[in-house]
Amino acid sequence: MEEEKEVQHALQFDDAIIQQQGDSDDADGVGPSDAFIREILELLENNYTDRIQELCRDISAPDAADLLVKADKEDRRELVHILEDQLDPETFSYLDYEVLNDLFSHMPDPQIAAIVGALESDDAIRMVEDLDEDRRDGIMRHLSRKVRAAVEEGLTFPEESAGRMMQREFVAIPQFWTVGKTVDYLRVAAHALPDRFYDIFIVDTMHRFTGAVMLNDLLCAQRPVKIDTLVGEEHVTIPVDMDREQVAHLFRRKDLLSAPVIDADGRLIGMITVDDIVDVIDELAEEDFLKLGGVTDSDIFRPTVATVRSRFWWLCINLFTAFADTFVINLFSNTIEKVIALAALMPVVASMGGNAGTQTLAVAVRGIATKELTAANAWRIIGKELLVGSINGLLFGAAMIGIIMFWYHDLRLGLVMAAAMIFNLAAAGFTGAVIPIWLDRAGFDPAHSGAVFLTTVTDIVGFFAFLGLATLFLM
Amino acid sequence: MEEEKEVQHALQFDDAIIQQQGDSDDADGVGPSDAFIREILELLENNYTDRIQELCRDISAPDAADLLVKADKEDRRELVHILEDQLDPETFSYLDYEVLNDLFSHMPDPQIAAIVGALESDDAIRMVEDLDEDRRDGIMRHLSRKVRAAVEEGLTFPEESAGRMMQREFVAIPQFWTVGKTVDYLRVAAHALPDRFYDIFIVDTMHRFTGAVMLNDLLCAQRPVKIDTLVGEEHVTIPVDMDREQVAHLFRRKDLLSAPVIDADGRLIGMITVDDIVDVIDELAEEDFLKLGGVTDSDIFRPTVATVRSRFWWLCINLFTAFADTFVINLFSNTIEKVIALAALMPVVASMGGNAGTQTLAVAVRGIATKELTAANAWRIIGKELLVGSINGLLFGAAMIGIIMFWYHDLRLGLVMAAAMIFNLAAAGFTGAVIPIWLDRAGFDPAHSGAVFLTTVTDIVGFFAFLGLATLFLM
Repeated sequence: MEEEKEVQHALQFDDAIIQQQGDSDDADGVGPSDAFIREILELLENNYTDRIQELCRDISAPDAADLLVKADKEDRRELVHILEDQLDPETFSYLDYEVLNDLFSHMPDPQIAAIVGALESDDAIRMVEDLDEDRRDGIMRHLSRKVRAAVEEGLTFPEESAGRMMQREFVAIPQFWTVGKTVDYLRVAAHALPDRFYDIFIVDTMHRFTGAVMLNDLLCAQRPVKIDTLVGEEHVTIPVDMDREQVAHLFRRKDLLSAPVIDADGRLIGMITVDDIVDVIDELAEEDFLKLGGVTDSDIFRPTVATVRSRFWWLCINLFTAFADTFVINLFSNTIEKVIALAALMPVVASMGGNAGTQTLAVAVRGIATKELTAANAWRIIGKELLVGSINGLLFGAAMIGIIMFWYHDLRLGLVMAAAMIFNLAAAGFTGAVIPIWLDRAGFDPAHSGAVFLTTVTDIVGFFAFLGLATLFLM
Repeated sequence: MEEEKEVQHALQFDDAIIQQQGDSDDADGVGPSDAFIREILELLENNYTDRIQELCRDISAPDAADLLVKADKEDRRELVHILEDQLDPETFSYLDYEVLNDLFSHMPDPQIAAIVGALESDDAIRMVEDLDEDRRDGIMRHLSRKVRAAVEEGLTFPEESAGRMMQREFVAIPQFWTVGKTVDYLRVAAHALPDRFYDIFIVDTMHRFTGAVMLNDLLCAQRPVKIDTLVGEEHVTIPVDMDREQVAHLFRRKDLLSAPVIDADGRLIGMITVDDIVDVIDELAEEDFLKLGGVTDSDIFRPTVATVRSRFWWLCINLFTAFADTFVINLFSNTIEKVIALAALMPVVASMGGNAGTQTLAVAVRGIATKELTAANAWRIIGKELLVGSINGLLFGAAMIGIIMFWYHDLRLGLVMAAAMIFNLAAAGFTGAVIPIWLDRAGFDPAHSGAVFLTTVTDIVGFFAFLGLATLFLM
């Protein structure tokens, strides 16, 4: 007990340890500083290759990736050339798809194959799956038989499935072993085990998976203890074709560090680890965020022309909905001609509806993603959003009357605008909740298409309600 | 080697294991099914409390939380009452803030204190920090001295800092120990160690932190090996006041399972584990997503009136910017009166600008969050976005001429609209990139305020350019 106290107590802070992380790190210790990157790029401009090699001698893979990403296309290629022998192959697995593709397009197949071959099987598959078909074949030819087999097998699983994420290296032992035998085995077999493993999978005499043991439980147990007594209560297994989103949910719910992957015949064929899950969660969040903004995936490093192309179609769809507005407004051009103030006021009604609807849409899309919003409570949420929209409509409707009276001294115009506002905000609340729920149930992506549908509805309802009421009551 | 082959090979699939997860699980094994939830709520309506207790006997904490969340307010309170003795206290740590607050408002202090006291220190702090000040004091009085001290200490650290996230239980041993001695110590001290730990922290004779050893490396090492030879290369330490976003970045970059937290005097005072990081990453992503949609945090379970209030202010800001549009349009009412088609066409220009700008904004905000966009490449990205906007402007400008010619047979109107479109999409690209970069550098949140600034710019530029050019060339 005294020993325990000694070690858990009063550790002195050592500045030297922090410093040791190198000059290339920010104050927060996350990534190379902009100053470091600028220094390297300046040295590059002046062709001080030796100095660059020296400064980057101990650069970590994520730091090197950061440096490459921040350089422009030409500098980046040159840096990879200069640092060729120094770069950890893992560096390339941190690179954005666009950046990687550009670099690879200037590298010979054998060089890329050497990089792929040095990665863990899951990283290797992730790198190869993004390549163009013909490029992929060229590189595959230069891979060792073993790596090629692993990559080829990995590519047979559906995209974004557990099979693409898993690594083929894991530790499994028979149920009847003791702690002592297990520890002895691990020491003897150390060279054949994966670099990192977080759980030991247990199999029974029929080779069936019966559970996982956490390493800390194994470490703390006495040698004669039977290994199967250490197995946790829950037996999580991941079918190889499970979607990565489901896998991520499972990891979060059960606070897993790793989980066994089984194929259709039930064989334990791989392991998924929490660090891959962290990446998946981040990617899924990125997708949803960008889709809400009208972009399918991050094109921050995509060449200009390709970016124009990827953004163009979304804007085309928006052009159609914008002209739908034009069509509605045109129906009322006589009214507008007579009460020209309507032209200046109508965007207010439409824009408030769009904003209120987007609030609801965002909350609903997120609720669907986190499974907080399912069929079990969908109608309750829709009802609440309709109510929230209506109440905000009443509040802003009242404000409208005040503003219009102050500005235009026209009560009837104020009342028309208030009524249109109430109507449009209620519609916004209702459709903002219904659209994503309906899209999700119909198998579409609620984040992406939701925003177009929604603003089409709120624009058309907004213009129609406002101009229609104006035609009825102001003419 | 034969043994290795035996255990890693040909595991039979056992359906029974999957079934064992219980009837309450979906086909995907993630959470209770809607059918199960509906059954429970139906039983509740008919007061079959015994049957409910029976069905929920082995319900896991996240599943119970799901059930509670999907029930409405009254049912939820009743369920907690019925299941009082069965619910794992951890259930409450999975609940949404709104749901928890409502439940707690109907529970006596000692009952809540019993729940808080049964949680790990980090979960306990997270639960207490969200409570109202006076409620918190009442509950604190009923906590054991030890838990109260831990919670009080935790609350002294800034919100969203490492100090709030860390647990106070960790394993640290002296540098000079061997693997054998460490394993022996762990077996003897097992009862005093945390339930889960993923790394062992090493300290030197001066009690300074010198590194961490992964459990799998410890397990695979021979007993006489010195522990400090197993220490990984990188020494990551987390200052107690580090922001949780930085902590999450650090974990992701280094693929950490756990990391030591040190206080201002350098003492090792806690440990942060990867499961907490997964939650942080998810929360941060949720924040950004909702902010882009104009909501500060998820109000899906917030009562209607509170939801109205939280949404109201955002809509107020939007009302101001909408009336800025009205002001601009009013400047040109003479022009609109003469060419009434302008009224129907002007929303097209504004809306295309808003959409194109939001695309850029989303990509830039995300780039800033992932540190892919920093000072080192900010100007390059801004330049690219200006170019992308201009090119899309040219394309849609050309389309405008065609559409207007077809619809209105008026070339000059088409040219005016094309020019306005080019101008507005270029402005949208530029401001969509500049605004978040500038907000971030000024210390504001780029996701939230970015969207208002942006649409204000694109609306005003759009209306001004279109109506201004029309006044110059069509009158």
